[in-house]
Amino acid sequence: MKKFFYQCSNCGKHYQRDEVRYLCPLCARDYRPGVPLIGVLSARFDYGAIRKQFRKEKPDWNLFSAVEEKFFPPFPVGNTPFFQSVALGKETGFDDVWLKNDGLNPSASLKDRASFLVVAEANRLGEKTIVAASTGNAASALAAVCAAAGKRALIFVPANAPKAKLAQMILYGATVVPVRGTYDDAFRLSLEYTAKRGGLNRNTAYHPLTIEGKKTVGLEIWQQNHWRVPDVILVPTGDGVIISGVHKAFCDLKAAGLISRLPRLVCVQAEKSNAIDHYVVSGIYENAVNPDTIADSISVSIPSNAHLARQAILDSGGFSITVSDAEILAGQRMLAAKTGVFAEPASSAVVAALKKLRGSRRIGRRDQVVLLITGHGLKDVESALHGLRLPSAVSPTLAAVEAALKARARKEPS
Amino acid sequence: MKKFFYQCSNCGKHYQRDEVRYLCPLCARDYRPGVPLIGVLSARFDYGAIRKQFRKEKPDWNLFSAVEEKFFPPFPVGNTPFFQSVALGKETGFDDVWLKNDGLNPSASLKDRASFLVVAEANRLGEKTIVAASTGNAASALAAVCAAAGKRALIFVPANAPKAKLAQMILYGATVVPVRGTYDDAFRLSLEYTAKRGGLNRNTAYHPLTIEGKKTVGLEIWQQNHWRVPDVILVPTGDGVIISGVHKAFCDLKAAGLISRLPRLVCVQAEKSNAIDHYVVSGIYENAVNPDTIADSISVSIPSNAHLARQAILDSGGFSITVSDAEILAGQRMLAAKTGVFAEPASSAVVAALKKLRGSRRIGRRDQVVLLITGHGLKDVESALHGLRLPSAVSPTLAAVEAALKARARKEPS
Repeated sequence: MKKFFYQCSNCGKHYQRDEVRYLCPLCARDYRPGVPLIGVLSARFDYGAIRKQFRKEKPDWNLFSAVEEKFFPPFPVGNTPFFQSVALGKETGFDDVWLKNDGLNPSASLKDRASFLVVAEANRLGEKTIVAASTGNAASALAAVCAAAGKRALIFVPANAPKAKLAQMILYGATVVPVRGTYDDAFRLSLEYTAKRGGLNRNTAYHPLTIEGKKTVGLEIWQQNHWRVPDVILVPTGDGVIISGVHKAFCDLKAAGLISRLPRLVCVQAEKSNAIDHYVVSGIYENAVNPDTIADSISVSIPSNAHLARQAILDSGGFSITVSDAEILAGQRMLAAKTGVFAEPASSAVVAALKKLRGSRRIGRRDQVVLLITGHGLKDVESALHGLRLPSAVSPTLAAVEAALKARARKEPS
Repeated sequence: MKKFFYQCSNCGKHYQRDEVRYLCPLCARDYRPGVPLIGVLSARFDYGAIRKQFRKEKPDWNLFSAVEEKFFPPFPVGNTPFFQSVALGKETGFDDVWLKNDGLNPSASLKDRASFLVVAEANRLGEKTIVAASTGNAASALAAVCAAAGKRALIFVPANAPKAKLAQMILYGATVVPVRGTYDDAFRLSLEYTAKRGGLNRNTAYHPLTIEGKKTVGLEIWQQNHWRVPDVILVPTGDGVIISGVHKAFCDLKAAGLISRLPRLVCVQAEKSNAIDHYVVSGIYENAVNPDTIADSISVSIPSNAHLARQAILDSGGFSITVSDAEILAGQRMLAAKTGVFAEPASSAVVAALKKLRGSRRIGRRDQVVLLITGHGLKDVESALHGLRLPSAVSPTLAAVEAALKARARKEPS
């Protein structure tokens, strides 16, 4: 039996594992959709035991897992590349820039980590249907893990989600309900659905194990960084759950006495979907009005995890920054051309942010900076092609090729 | 200095590392595009030294690498998931089915492995431009690795390559020349280009390190399978280089005395792009006439590596099989729905093949069978959507959702 319990992030009350499922019953009593979640639960482990049992030579990550290994679905997630890019460092003006490329998860986003753990929990509980609202990535992730686990995924997405993401969910065999409305409408609907019809709700932050699942990316960074804590991690932020998960990883490690300081977390949002940024900068929470950005994965009016996200940013000594869609697209191209990593717009926002921070002194030039890439660019090819021209076809002769290359060189002198 | 040499797969002549670059000069003297390559070179290592130095507790894979680690580009490839799927086994009628999901390489295909090694070789040689012809995946892979390595990629692709693959190459900063013609035309053109204008040619099989790069997937399977040799590996086959690479891995391991038998290799081709299949089955080589399949990555008239591929299949005790486009699409859906792996059509062909082999006794029911997934489904969403209908959007109310779900249940009784 796992030795862990839940603690309400709002009132601090403790709950046994099976005493609660989603939010703190006390704090969430008055919660109504339309504002960020209140009473998000945080898993607390037996940190003294972890300190005694954890060995770097043979790390047992199950010590940090809220669900027992025997419930894990046959769907390996994580274990994605972590590496330095000197070229991107030069381009952005920082000496020590690293990438964690989590777009290389099976369904092509970091969200696989959260879905994996919630489906493991569903196995433990014997739940057969898992319900979620998503801008696209969490839904494809849930659909994929449910396919592997033989469960039913019921998914609410905004009807304008990128086609590739919709195609993924349907191929994985999920029941997909495109909603004529925003992500926030889909979120509300899915809560209503599970309240009235049952099934396990996997909505981000609403189910506490979404944060725990995302936490694993932080643990991996620590291990892959040879057990050192990076100075700064830039995180694309929509609902604020990934940044909370990364923070939780290092808080757990610190509580277990395995590290002595936290990485500074930088929240990166799109200019027109900036509710958490505004909250961090001003201290006052307001929903984002008509969020509108090419970075669909971080387009949200009411970030479900706004309160915990703000806390993670401030607690880590980090800060928040926003970038425009034009900066995001430029960041996407810079990332691809300098590192060979093709990231979706939301993830490219962190590259744009780093470029923008050059010379600002908010990040030291010599700091070890990690850019968290959360989704693959192939998820949204249309956005990537925005403003790009595919070269025209040539006849299959060397003469035609050379003429075409010469003509291009004249147009784009390098 | 590496202790290895090249051996011609046709005449057996040995060459020192820098004595040759592409094909065996003697055997390829009369080679003209229009037939498979003749005189493909094979790297030979000091197997006695490997036997002495290789330790499973701390495996040094550089012993098997044709290029020194110091030349490696900053672009981690491989290390992709290998896992069992009981559900897919049940669905196909085999007891022990495993997946190697190499679509989770950075540019989303196994081709990253070959491009990685050829770019490492370019670093060693001081070559700045790398040239390739490709149906799409090898080109995106080359473009990605070149981006990370600061090299110029010059790429010839058929103009009808999937848009996602073209978008990738362009974003990575490659010089892309879409050719009004087939992959075979692009192949010929690229050879002509490097012969007259220089640069390192990375064409598959033409550069011997493409096979060596792809070999690493076989080494990984062996390691991830706890140092056991699987009974059978199904490989999607176009040019025949991947199947050769997988074979080479196990031949190297056997030569080093680390294993005692080879896995049987099953060549899977599309019905209408079946030159290698025909060659294996009949013993007579003929170009495929007007290859036409939804599996663009294995659509080829003149498989460059036909001779070595046939040899690998026969030498391993394997065989060849073809599948139709309809079977490929059904395989893609089965794979996604049973395992959560979204593979491109070419890779889905192996699932279709396994299903077709049920009850044929060509593979034993209890054999450990590995399906090699070579490319991610996100590379070609249009194909995946072929024949699928996206569900229509509903109003954001629970009543509308329930009505829509009921209507669907009536249409598709489960």
